[in-house]
Amino acid sequence: MLVLTQGDPAGIGPEITQKAWLATRHSGPAFVFLGAPELVQNALPIQIVQTPAQAAEVFAHALPVIPLNLATPAIPGTPDSHNAPSVIESIAQAVGLVQSGQASAVVTNPISKEVVQKTGFAHPGHTSYLAELCGVPGQDVMMLAGPSLRVVPVTVHVALRKAITQLKPALIYKTARTVHRALQRDFALAAPRIAVAGLNPHAGENGLMGTEEHDIIIPALKTLQAEGLHITGPYPPDTLFTPQARARYDVALCMYHDQGLIPLKTLDMAEGVNVTLGLPIIRTSPDHGTAFDIAGRNVAEPTSLLAALRLAATLVENRKNAQ
Amino acid sequence: MLVLTQGDPAGIGPEITQKAWLATRHSGPAFVFLGAPELVQNALPIQIVQTPAQAAEVFAHALPVIPLNLATPAIPGTPDSHNAPSVIESIAQAVGLVQSGQASAVVTNPISKEVVQKTGFAHPGHTSYLAELCGVPGQDVMMLAGPSLRVVPVTVHVALRKAITQLKPALIYKTARTVHRALQRDFALAAPRIAVAGLNPHAGENGLMGTEEHDIIIPALKTLQAEGLHITGPYPPDTLFTPQARARYDVALCMYHDQGLIPLKTLDMAEGVNVTLGLPIIRTSPDHGTAFDIAGRNVAEPTSLLAALRLAATLVENRKNAQ
Repeated sequence: MLVLTQGDPAGIGPEITQKAWLATRHSGPAFVFLGAPELVQNALPIQIVQTPAQAAEVFAHALPVIPLNLATPAIPGTPDSHNAPSVIESIAQAVGLVQSGQASAVVTNPISKEVVQKTGFAHPGHTSYLAELCGVPGQDVMMLAGPSLRVVPVTVHVALRKAITQLKPALIYKTARTVHRALQRDFALAAPRIAVAGLNPHAGENGLMGTEEHDIIIPALKTLQAEGLHITGPYPPDTLFTPQARARYDVALCMYHDQGLIPLKTLDMAEGVNVTLGLPIIRTSPDHGTAFDIAGRNVAEPTSLLAALRLAATLVENRKNAQ
Repeated sequence: MLVLTQGDPAGIGPEITQKAWLATRHSGPAFVFLGAPELVQNALPIQIVQTPAQAAEVFAHALPVIPLNLATPAIPGTPDSHNAPSVIESIAQAVGLVQSGQASAVVTNPISKEVVQKTGFAHPGHTSYLAELCGVPGQDVMMLAGPSLRVVPVTVHVALRKAITQLKPALIYKTARTVHRALQRDFALAAPRIAVAGLNPHAGENGLMGTEEHDIIIPALKTLQAEGLHITGPYPPDTLFTPQARARYDVALCMYHDQGLIPLKTLDMAEGVNVTLGLPIIRTSPDHGTAFDIAGRNVAEPTSLLAALRLAATLVENRKNAQ
């Protein structure tokens, strides 16, 4: 049984949650919504439950909800930081349910950084908060997975200028080792192939256009290769995402956010899933935001959330088999 | 009549030239090869000519060649800088033929920067040399055009760190104005729509992840909008290349090389064409390099060169109609 968090109550989370239940109630994967019941009871049968086990019994007939309170009624499209504590509480309770063995994985609905940070939430997003809740601060690694491609950006939500200065061998080691272990354990790949992008155009072209490949990336890869990782590169970034190139690796390790997210969203916009590696728990998420601009209009597509639910179920199964 | 330059004689240029002639001899567009005859006379009928006008008469029956000499025999896959003067001479003569009205456009075969720079060639590639030959140094703007997408990187062949420091309003003005004029005159778009990418993840997210959008890009766009350009942005880079997003613009103005070239090559690897805007002449090129690693094996695909020849012919026609 997966736990789906509330996300921002004014975003599209409640809407795609309902659509996802309609799409999965007969086939699974089953999930329980951890949020305010009034967000999802519009036209659907819902069932208030207290535990994931109870949710499993009703899932085919009603959307199961473990209830949380909102401080103020949610207005779709109008975020309100008074509800931030409820947003954060949902994440914390969901992690607790997996840690206690009552649920198998956490799937998170989108939150707004701006909304939660107004109330003192100190994290740049879900991921580092989850790492803290799991007792492994700083160990989180973000992967985006779609039908065409998996990417892991080594640096993530920072200005491009800062991403370049953050790029160090230690960061590449940590990320690559986490990716290697996760692909083995959770993605059922016995010998995962990691392709590493350069930072600069043409991967620096032997130093003509940047030295980070020579100074940072290549030494890091040599160390990782010596550890037995099947890791290659650095490759010119612009040709790393063609069909021919993608056939030669299981995941692309990217040096900055858009280097990985541009090809991922260009190829797999609707079906991309955000997966947090490096945690003791399994966590996935749709790879879109709260979409306040279309909330409440019944036009949001649940495609990415459905992919996130299905991938979470697959990862749970793979990890079970790996034990 | 298009002029096709020699390119590096040890690269795949000679091979794709022959394949391109086989594909176009009946349908056009007609072109004349400006290079050493021995590079292309393997199995094909060739015809030595002195002018593009003579080339037009024979094109259906033989690959027309305006002959140049090599300093040393070319060995496929083994570049030799002794032949660099011939490589450069081909470019210079091709430009001259268009300037004198004997040919309509220049299409260039790939060259190796490393090979030509060994002999004192002071340019980072074709484009700035072409601008100098045309008497408009610094006015060249690189566009990559494919069936799915057109992109123009504002900064090009420099380290990513340097690209960020080069990003100034003046560079955005110059590039956007050149793109606007070229799309009108050569691409037959009366009111071209230019979409501008941010530099940082999420286009900076209101300053949370970088300030270049606020300090540089947005002010530049306001000025350009006031001039009447249909230019919008800055958009989050990672969602700018989805099918839905691409439907809303004619060209994406990108802040650095890989921001534009990753989506272009991911979507249109085989058929991408490099177009130089801002010159008085029309110039296109395949968007791949010399491919020394596969030269001489008869496995090179002429797809991008064919697209470059066809696009050059279309641009010639559009420009004629615009006059």
